[in-house]
Amino acid sequence: MAIRIDYRWMVPPLAAAQVESYRGLAASVHGGLAARRKAGSLPFYDLPRQDVPAIERFAAERQGSFDDLVVLGIGGSSLGLLAVNAALRTPFPRLEPAPRLTVLDNIDPLRVSSLLGALDPRRTLLNVITKSGDTAETMSTFLVFRKWLTDSLGERPARERIVVTTDAAKGALRKIASDEDLAAFTVPDGVGGRFSVLTPVGLLPAALLGIDIRGLLAGAASMDRRLASPDLMENPALLGAVLHRIGYDEGRRISVMFAYADQLYLLADWYRQLWAESLGKRRRLDGTERPVGPTPVKALGVTDQHSQVQLYRDGPDDKIYTFLTVDRFAAAVPIPAVGEAAGLDAVAYLGGHSLEELLAAEERATEAALFLAGRPVARIAFPEVSPQSVGEYFHLMEATTVAAGALFGIDPLDQPGVEAGKQYAYGLMGRQGFAEMRRELESLAPGDERFLFTGSE
Amino acid sequence: MAIRIDYRWMVPPLAAAQVESYRGLAASVHGGLAARRKAGSLPFYDLPRQDVPAIERFAAERQGSFDDLVVLGIGGSSLGLLAVNAALRTPFPRLEPAPRLTVLDNIDPLRVSSLLGALDPRRTLLNVITKSGDTAETMSTFLVFRKWLTDSLGERPARERIVVTTDAAKGALRKIASDEDLAAFTVPDGVGGRFSVLTPVGLLPAALLGIDIRGLLAGAASMDRRLASPDLMENPALLGAVLHRIGYDEGRRISVMFAYADQLYLLADWYRQLWAESLGKRRRLDGTERPVGPTPVKALGVTDQHSQVQLYRDGPDDKIYTFLTVDRFAAAVPIPAVGEAAGLDAVAYLGGHSLEELLAAEERATEAALFLAGRPVARIAFPEVSPQSVGEYFHLMEATTVAAGALFGIDPLDQPGVEAGKQYAYGLMGRQGFAEMRRELESLAPGDERFLFTGSE
Repeated sequence: MAIRIDYRWMVPPLAAAQVESYRGLAASVHGGLAARRKAGSLPFYDLPRQDVPAIERFAAERQGSFDDLVVLGIGGSSLGLLAVNAALRTPFPRLEPAPRLTVLDNIDPLRVSSLLGALDPRRTLLNVITKSGDTAETMSTFLVFRKWLTDSLGERPARERIVVTTDAAKGALRKIASDEDLAAFTVPDGVGGRFSVLTPVGLLPAALLGIDIRGLLAGAASMDRRLASPDLMENPALLGAVLHRIGYDEGRRISVMFAYADQLYLLADWYRQLWAESLGKRRRLDGTERPVGPTPVKALGVTDQHSQVQLYRDGPDDKIYTFLTVDRFAAAVPIPAVGEAAGLDAVAYLGGHSLEELLAAEERATEAALFLAGRPVARIAFPEVSPQSVGEYFHLMEATTVAAGALFGIDPLDQPGVEAGKQYAYGLMGRQGFAEMRRELESLAPGDERFLFTGSE
Repeated sequence: MAIRIDYRWMVPPLAAAQVESYRGLAASVHGGLAARRKAGSLPFYDLPRQDVPAIERFAAERQGSFDDLVVLGIGGSSLGLLAVNAALRTPFPRLEPAPRLTVLDNIDPLRVSSLLGALDPRRTLLNVITKSGDTAETMSTFLVFRKWLTDSLGERPARERIVVTTDAAKGALRKIASDEDLAAFTVPDGVGGRFSVLTPVGLLPAALLGIDIRGLLAGAASMDRRLASPDLMENPALLGAVLHRIGYDEGRRISVMFAYADQLYLLADWYRQLWAESLGKRRRLDGTERPVGPTPVKALGVTDQHSQVQLYRDGPDDKIYTFLTVDRFAAAVPIPAVGEAAGLDAVAYLGGHSLEELLAAEERATEAALFLAGRPVARIAFPEVSPQSVGEYFHLMEATTVAAGALFGIDPLDQPGVEAGKQYAYGLMGRQGFAEMRRELESLAPGDERFLFTGSE
């Protein structure tokens, strides 16, 4: 059973005639992408068809040799794995079976030091992931962890507890891996971080955790077959991109991914990077400077009904909603009956139902409440949360994003806007060649002191 | 040391003259709120000055009798506690000391059944929190947990493992508590869920976890003293509300809370409910229907630099940013030096620094990159993450929210927009009196089948 993509409650409120008017453009976008795919410049499209013997062999060799898999990676090197692990193992860190996964996607000193205090170096496997091989956060924590392993185990045994995933030739991490003969996997050329979950970036740690990576790939491949048509009415990625473009142009600049299952919440977080970094751009392909970019927001059902739905329903009509739902949960929890005593009628109706039913009812009710308030609502329904369905989702979202990039007239594969912040940080950290950035930053006007409240006034 | 509130990099880009023009209105908003406070209709303002002997007595009595504190609550009954626990104990569930906190703020059947499988009923204490006493999600999980406790321990011992926090008189939970003689605390009248962290809703479980609740209250009280002036240039809550109002009117409808510490991230999530539910309204106080509402977004630094900053810097100028920072972390992690060998110069500069320094440099660099791109950037700096500073933050944000409500001309204390979804769910669940809602929902047009992709076409 494949995931169902349901755009029916988007049209209306979005106008069917508007959708029709995109037919020609959508077909030409599809043709352009297909040509680039054929020319090899969009390799993410073909990841589902790769074979993965080296990953499986490494995972099999290391099986049983570690209780903790620690992944050092950030952004595109962490979000896909986190989503896969939450969906296919458990979303609850406290309840995670061994081997446990820890993704160190921040440099918070408290996080790092607490973690080091809790790990056993003899039973820890470290997977360091950075495409460039130079990422400041990942390389900093790598230096910390390498010293910790070496101090605890000695140099040679420490090396056997490390596997790196990085560029084939470039960068400091590749250099270290070669010099120290570390186990190493390669991020394929031309696949950016946010499109890399189905490369060794996501697949290697997933396999080490016992996740069915062939199932993920099979799911992605089956979705790829569903996206072959240049006709937007036959191609849900193309249609999804068109609907988001229409919504954006009408002022719906926020895209809410509302996951109605704990297992699916981090799929929304992965999407958040994919959508934001791919579509948030200052410059169009025609060279003009016209900033564009929908803002993705993640939400968890039913939890966020008690936090965000007031705004979603009554606030401005500035959002598009995509609900992620599950037909069959892996657990069933009946709600015990409660007596019909006076004062309890407000909860008596719950008895005899199940939490699954209540969740589904609330999901459906929330969709309807939004639809009736004129909000565009889509739904991606997972028959069950399986490697297959998660793989389908990844590929659908990546293809939708690239098509949306073409419709917005921007390059969805670059991220020039993060450079400035990186360079200021290099300057502050004293990296050679960036002293000018430091000076520039230090010369910024501090601003009007009247707008600073120190608490000692 | 008090938290510092720094609006200097908001003005400009927001115009100082604009701020000035709000002076009169701000003073009258302050006067109106002060009058309502005096009249007793805004009791949240005075929570910091309450005494808490009953809570402390109960926490002392129960100390040592449980390894797991399970809190059943959702929205305003969970977000404050989650934030307090992450800030003042640990943000890492895997590393949490006993007693461990589990907040069941969703009805996901997998979450509930996994949790029940992991808990020992003899060492579990259950705190059920719902102001109305009828919340479907909380009462459903309560029925499940009550049966589990009773089946495991027998009726009487089960009752001793439950403490409820609810309305003084109304609702099903109060009725059950009275009938079964359960330990019970009261949510004070007139304090809505999202303003209730400093009532027994947040304070009781915090005290049970050993958190210094007097410190929280003292922090809130000291902030309250900082917000006494009717002059917006002397009152950071009033000024914050004005700045957000100006930003919103200029098209910056998204409010990003960017926490640069794992411990502070859930303070952003708590704010997300406070801001969205308080300010997202369809109707103004003058009776007109003019939907309004900024959308709050939470982000985690440095992590989200690799996910959202591309959009934040290069995308449309539709956001206001508030950075949460920490001057002194509770841990220090030096970055080991790396040789200056060829190929490693790209990371050599990191050695000799610390993760704290790198985090601070990246935070500062990200702020500067946004400011230079013309984005309004505020900063709330915590000298350290302490009960005092967290209490200050809560009170500042609540006061800012209420002032913003007045500036937007809406009622920040109600949430009429969630009713429709609730009633449809009642209908679907067969609650008496809601059959009409079910019929209405079932009669909704399913929509055009061409927009549904089932995967079997």
